[in-house]
Amino acid sequence: MKTEDFSANPQINDLRTSIDNIDASIIFLLAERFRCTRKIGAVKASERLAPVDPEREEKQITRLRQIARIAEFDGDFAETFYRTVSAEVVRQHISAAQRP
Amino acid sequence: MKTEDFSANPQINDLRTSIDNIDASIIFLLAERFRCTRKIGAVKASERLAPVDPEREEKQITRLRQIARIAEFDGDFAETFYRTVSAEVVRQHISAAQRP
Repeated sequence: MKTEDFSANPQINDLRTSIDNIDASIIFLLAERFRCTRKIGAVKASERLAPVDPEREEKQITRLRQIARIAEFDGDFAETFYRTVSAEVVRQHISAAQRP
Repeated sequence: MKTEDFSANPQINDLRTSIDNIDASIIFLLAERFRCTRKIGAVKASERLAPVDPEREEKQITRLRQIARIAEFDGDFAETFYRTVSAEVVRQHISAAQRP
């Protein structure tokens, strides 16, 4: 096992540049996604709707798994991604509902 | 607390359509990101490089937190997102290195 100096490997560096661009794009999309969910949270809080909607969540997971298939992407990881984001959304919704 | 029927709320439905589009975009970007990391995994395996590069990971987290600030997005969640993806990448790299 060599030491951790990948700087000399141009192929790895080139791929890492693509990864950096993709990550930045995903962060901006996540920022927009949370702008949407914050608005939903405000509507739910003002109308006293429950912060979690399990039926919607199941539909979204099914849909994301379909999209993952089209993208030749691992459906299990698509679901892991969704659940990670969803847990944060619910946390924010509960926090919004508790605000006076 | 009302029952879970949001279908009558046009504002929530409209925001959910945006969320569905954003999620699909993120899945396609993640698919492309894992295409890149699989190629890196193959290079690392063929050159017998370690599957994990802690220095690169720290640099990426710092960078994603900077991007999160620009996007007015929660830096902690940007890091959570990164660590979720990174754990899967390492899992795949180890698996690639173990292939004969």
